[in-house]
Amino acid sequence: MMRYEVYVTGKPGIFDPAGKTTAGALSNLGYAGVAQVRIGKFIQLSCDDSVSLEQLTEMCEKLLANPIIEDYRIEEVLEGAEG
Amino acid sequence: MMRYEVYVTGKPGIFDPAGKTTAGALSNLGYAGVAQVRIGKFIQLSCDDSVSLEQLTEMCEKLLANPIIEDYRIEEVLEGAEG
Repeated sequence: MMRYEVYVTGKPGIFDPAGKTTAGALSNLGYAGVAQVRIGKFIQLSCDDSVSLEQLTEMCEKLLANPIIEDYRIEEVLEGAEG
Repeated sequence: MMRYEVYVTGKPGIFDPAGKTTAGALSNLGYAGVAQVRIGKFIQLSCDDSVSLEQLTEMCEKLLANPIIEDYRIEEVLEGAEG
């Protein structure tokens, strides 16, 4: 069983309403030093050994991310590493 | 300006409907080797130097994560590192 992590983030310049709202809420809570917040997705996948990195890229392009407005990064989680 | 990344994940055993649905969709697309998908949040913060790691922990406890059902991990992004 292999473990992968996919980080999905809005492309630079794409408006992120959730991040904007969160930044405003932090400011209201008194954390004035937070300049910007961007919220993306952190996806953890457990796959059997038949799944290749090429297939994971396909999954990102087709389903996990929206490549028009989002970037993604795939990382393999090494055995014994913290997830 | 400091950059931090916060990873928010459902605690083990907490049901993750979005992850379950995504796993089903991947299976329907023909990716049979994916055993489990868990979807969390990947939050990128830009802060000025007045913001301490202690404050970031408070932000996570109060707003960024729901500590009842979610775990979080805070990482500082070092200068020049890939975000």
